[in-house]
Amino acid sequence: MPAIAGVSLQAARARIKYPGRDDLLLVTLDRGTTVAGVFTRSATASAPVQWSQKVAASGKARAILINSGNANTFTGVQGVADVRSTAAMAGRAVGCRDSDVLIASTGVIGEPLPVNRVQRALAGMASRNRCASWIRAARAIGTTDTYPKGAVRRVRIGGTEVSLCGIAKGSGMIAPDMATMLAFVFTDARLPTPVLRTLLKEGIRTSFNCITVDSDTSTSDTVLLAATGRALNGLPKSATAPELKAFRAALKELLTDLAIQVVRDGEGASKFITVDVSGAASNAEARKAALAIANSPLVKTAIAGEDANWGRIIMAVGKSGARLFQKHLAISIGGITITHAGERVGSYDERQITKHLKGTEISIAVDLGVGRSKSRVWTCDLTHDYIRINADYRT
Amino acid sequence: MPAIAGVSLQAARARIKYPGRDDLLLVTLDRGTTVAGVFTRSATASAPVQWSQKVAASGKARAILINSGNANTFTGVQGVADVRSTAAMAGRAVGCRDSDVLIASTGVIGEPLPVNRVQRALAGMASRNRCASWIRAARAIGTTDTYPKGAVRRVRIGGTEVSLCGIAKGSGMIAPDMATMLAFVFTDARLPTPVLRTLLKEGIRTSFNCITVDSDTSTSDTVLLAATGRALNGLPKSATAPELKAFRAALKELLTDLAIQVVRDGEGASKFITVDVSGAASNAEARKAALAIANSPLVKTAIAGEDANWGRIIMAVGKSGARLFQKHLAISIGGITITHAGERVGSYDERQITKHLKGTEISIAVDLGVGRSKSRVWTCDLTHDYIRINADYRT
Repeated sequence: MPAIAGVSLQAARARIKYPGRDDLLLVTLDRGTTVAGVFTRSATASAPVQWSQKVAASGKARAILINSGNANTFTGVQGVADVRSTAAMAGRAVGCRDSDVLIASTGVIGEPLPVNRVQRALAGMASRNRCASWIRAARAIGTTDTYPKGAVRRVRIGGTEVSLCGIAKGSGMIAPDMATMLAFVFTDARLPTPVLRTLLKEGIRTSFNCITVDSDTSTSDTVLLAATGRALNGLPKSATAPELKAFRAALKELLTDLAIQVVRDGEGASKFITVDVSGAASNAEARKAALAIANSPLVKTAIAGEDANWGRIIMAVGKSGARLFQKHLAISIGGITITHAGERVGSYDERQITKHLKGTEISIAVDLGVGRSKSRVWTCDLTHDYIRINADYRT
Repeated sequence: MPAIAGVSLQAARARIKYPGRDDLLLVTLDRGTTVAGVFTRSATASAPVQWSQKVAASGKARAILINSGNANTFTGVQGVADVRSTAAMAGRAVGCRDSDVLIASTGVIGEPLPVNRVQRALAGMASRNRCASWIRAARAIGTTDTYPKGAVRRVRIGGTEVSLCGIAKGSGMIAPDMATMLAFVFTDARLPTPVLRTLLKEGIRTSFNCITVDSDTSTSDTVLLAATGRALNGLPKSATAPELKAFRAALKELLTDLAIQVVRDGEGASKFITVDVSGAASNAEARKAALAIANSPLVKTAIAGEDANWGRIIMAVGKSGARLFQKHLAISIGGITITHAGERVGSYDERQITKHLKGTEISIAVDLGVGRSKSRVWTCDLTHDYIRINADYRT
């Protein structure tokens, strides 16, 4: 992944929770950088989310401070004070106001942030140069992630070549409502804040808002998009300006790439599952049915067990609340049609389905037989490892 | 459990799926028996559910035929024909019209019902007497259940003593919407159909509709209440008649008793969890928050791991959509207050929580700090055994 002009990275070991690894990332952004953010809709959103929403509302930022190991969530008045003081520390390190510092934290909920450790790590950063790699940055923000997640795209705006780089973390507590977990996308493109906001919102809709690992929504979900403007492209007037077409597509692709990386690294996941629902009365109903399948523990355990138990897909769409015609309901797994006109296809060969299920890329397609709307959702299977990881996360 | 005058039971081995055990139950009801039923709201409700809804709508029935091992769900035209022919066979055995026979089936979805086997078993029943015990009846209707579920109450209506006996099955695919899995309640009381319907609906609301094992809703959910009238009590005019007070309370108790037995036998369950939500803006929001906790795989795995990770409860109420004031949010586990006024109580002793979690009866209480409404939901933990049972159910 290439450097983005106007973005510099520093990672450090603050020992917030994990010893012997980076857990703090400071991103410095050039003056004039525009930003847009989407955040969790959780009613118990973390103190950093509440802080960063205000900073993002200004449309500009000079720094992002990200820590793993502690979410600074449900930490009351102290949590709010801790965000403010760490923003001030980061501001001093970067040379900007604390109101120009975005903060993102993930990890344990309800425990006070060890501010001293963050302070010490930031002080150490001041004396070092700002050139951590994207991969080191992606590792620093991870928690139960088993690999760093990043993606890159290069496109033109008008005649100017611009770059997009993004990193993300996330493995469990993944069921985005507005966004999921942490993802940070940087570009050297010059883009006004309203354009940036529109592009991000549009991109999230079909990427991070279409993944689920375990139906649980994080209190820390944050996706930020920062544009440094260093590419000096002509300033587009709106998100739909023709010269932005390639950029829009590239951003969507990049966000989807990151979102899929999160699901592939779902806690305990052994298989990656794509759920396509078509023939729905509306896109919202298609999404509801797709999420019902993707979140069903019975569907997810059947796939973990490589068991062609498609009756559980029938169950999931049945409970979803989406309208369907049983007589037109069609289900296929791995491209093999199982049901047609409300009944099992007589000739279908379960061995073929089982063969598909023995692979690691599973596809499920359901046609509700009602309308023309559709939706795609990505998820993973539910395995013993999910239980192992989460039955004893804190100890 | 005592016999109910006007109800006789016969169980048989039809070898529908499980060899070497009873899997068919025929309940014969005296002439004049009134019935009421509640059924799954799934859009992929089984053929027997669709049949029994019609029979229950008539308010009267003479027989109930129940099989385990095959749900006769999503079996199309053949499934409907199979229900009709088994109803006719049961009608012949009992000596009534097929439209007086209620049918309930649970088990694998999408496979045709082996009607021949049902027919053979019913023919064998004709030559034997009708005096299976309640416990044998409860065993015959079970699938992944690890023990039979039954409950009994005796009360007076006016001066007349009446009995209530109920049996239920259910272990996985438990997240009732209208009802859950199979439950059958019998009484010798004399009760008009409209009264019976009101009482059942009222009783379900706080019993079967307040349990969840895995958030998945069965396509076969059926709860039936049958009153033979053999106790010859004075006929009450309405469900709120004063002489029905004790009966109403006993029915609610019995339904709750059965519902709790289902959760205690949740697939892989090692702990029984009671979730109480108070301080909500409405009962619906209280229930939404309680179900979000009870369905969260992260909360359920933490409890399986005896880990006092209450941050996941914060997460669950946060995502639930129920209104809450973070500053007033109070959480306790095992009666020990953990958070107060939006922060962890400084003096709380995690060792006490851990001690409570090492037990098998877990209580979680959350006050949302908004209003006065409340809700109680029962669930179980999520363990390796749930994965083991469901990753390979069919083979």
